[in-house]
Amino acid sequence: MYSISDYQGYFLKFLEQKNNIKEPKNLYEPISYILNLGGKRLRPTLVLLTAEIFGTSYKNALDAALAIEVFHNFSLIHDDIMDDAPLRRGKETVHEKWDINTGILSGDAMLINAYQLFENYEGDTFKELAMLFTKTAIEVCEGQQYDIDFETRDDVTITEYIKMIEYKTAVLVGAAMQMGAIIADADSSCKSSIYNFGRLLGLAFQLQDDYLDAFGDPETFGKQLGGDIIENKKTFLYLKSLEFASAEEQKQLRGLFSLTPENSDEKIATVKYLFEKTGAKEAARSAIEEYTNKAFALLDTIDIADNKKQILKVFGQQLMNRNV
Amino acid sequence: MYSISDYQGYFLKFLEQKNNIKEPKNLYEPISYILNLGGKRLRPTLVLLTAEIFGTSYKNALDAALAIEVFHNFSLIHDDIMDDAPLRRGKETVHEKWDINTGILSGDAMLINAYQLFENYEGDTFKELAMLFTKTAIEVCEGQQYDIDFETRDDVTITEYIKMIEYKTAVLVGAAMQMGAIIADADSSCKSSIYNFGRLLGLAFQLQDDYLDAFGDPETFGKQLGGDIIENKKTFLYLKSLEFASAEEQKQLRGLFSLTPENSDEKIATVKYLFEKTGAKEAARSAIEEYTNKAFALLDTIDIADNKKQILKVFGQQLMNRNV
Repeated sequence: MYSISDYQGYFLKFLEQKNNIKEPKNLYEPISYILNLGGKRLRPTLVLLTAEIFGTSYKNALDAALAIEVFHNFSLIHDDIMDDAPLRRGKETVHEKWDINTGILSGDAMLINAYQLFENYEGDTFKELAMLFTKTAIEVCEGQQYDIDFETRDDVTITEYIKMIEYKTAVLVGAAMQMGAIIADADSSCKSSIYNFGRLLGLAFQLQDDYLDAFGDPETFGKQLGGDIIENKKTFLYLKSLEFASAEEQKQLRGLFSLTPENSDEKIATVKYLFEKTGAKEAARSAIEEYTNKAFALLDTIDIADNKKQILKVFGQQLMNRNV
Repeated sequence: MYSISDYQGYFLKFLEQKNNIKEPKNLYEPISYILNLGGKRLRPTLVLLTAEIFGTSYKNALDAALAIEVFHNFSLIHDDIMDDAPLRRGKETVHEKWDINTGILSGDAMLINAYQLFENYEGDTFKELAMLFTKTAIEVCEGQQYDIDFETRDDVTITEYIKMIEYKTAVLVGAAMQMGAIIADADSSCKSSIYNFGRLLGLAFQLQDDYLDAFGDPETFGKQLGGDIIENKKTFLYLKSLEFASAEEQKQLRGLFSLTPENSDEKIATVKYLFEKTGAKEAARSAIEEYTNKAFALLDTIDIADNKKQILKVFGQQLMNRNV
């Protein structure tokens, strides 16, 4: 009961049933392709888990779970075009395998399809789900815009950075969990608390992503280490490091983040050294812990059985301590 | 009463109130820009007109009218990227004035915003509007994909072409009118008939567009004449001309449509000659009349006062006989 891997399995089975290619093929094949690329399926699994935690069968939440996953993959297709990314999960991105126009149009169809997946819910539930989805989707777009804007700004604050990752990543985790609660017809304080629980875990999750990119274990970390450093991304580690650094170190760090050397090994090593020396590494670990603890404190206020709280807590701890 | 230009005015005033630029500016400025580029505002005006025809104030239909206009402009931004179009209504396109990434992301935000604009309608009406909108929006994407697919196919049939313009253009006109009927709480047979009335007029409208591109009066036609011929677009005129042509004429026409000469005057003149000689010009006029008459016949079956039918009829006749 309440097993994350079971829910993952139910979701994958549902996805397989629903993921058929209609006409025109050039529109629907890329959609099927990206949905089959894999991934942790974290967000849809959370929709199912939360629905059960608030007392309804995960079966009632499958459509909403798929909507969240379809939306997430829509945002990946369009983001990959904007970032000019050749690979996604080790495979060609949609605009690379097909072309940019295909990526734009298939993405658009996915965004619309996400709304369509709520249609099995009756009037008021439909509206509540669609409104939450809309609010979240707009924030994801705004987060992506802030992320783009930050690339050409050198005065980004930590507060602004946190707001950016909140919009770009964390609100969708919150929305996924709130959707489970909406479908289970939980009361409004539960819906609000579980949203914030998810949002805070989402923040911790993204900060952990930033952290692992620099300090992950090369043995277990799936992606290339130091990717953010190579791309001069202004992550929490970079911004915090600048904040704590001496004038000399600041100059060095800004200098390193204006370069893209052929061989990046030395740059990565120096930047990591500075992240550690300035205390930014430690600050990142603290922030991750802080957001996770805030999420756990919120959990205590929700009126559900202790064993259910325990499941959510274990899940949060796994996110915080993951190394992939 | 029921004056098209009055509704246009009410809509423009509403648009002005709603069209404010929020943060992040780089996301919302392009949205404001495209919404202010002008245009006939045909679709939103139809939402307002239809709402009043079915017995509710246009004021109740303003949000839905704006949703339709926002969606239409979303599709223009993304289509202009796909077509690599430098100009829209005589001004720079969004991706030209900003860049492709801005066009993608601002377009995405508009598509989401269109759904948001239905939120003032209560549960069941909201769901009915959102479902109609979703069905229509998916068809518009599919229509755009067929349009792209047709560029590289030389076996497109008239039936396929009609389906493409139905999806890409006509269904949104039908949906605009059905939304007015939904907001006025018209009965379901009225909703279905007015949708089909709009869809058929939309088909006539697009065929008239094809026709005017070749045979419009240079004195009154706003755009460059022969644009479709220069771009080798497989319009109704081209496909019908191929169907009617002798083997020799077919060869000539296919030959002309594989060229893009520096000076296109002679090509345009020859193609127009062939369109006329083969009977395609005449067939286009017949098809426009046929769809318009089908729309009018449908109008007769709708249970509304005769003076209201008359307004819709005059509107349809104007569309059919327009020269811009």
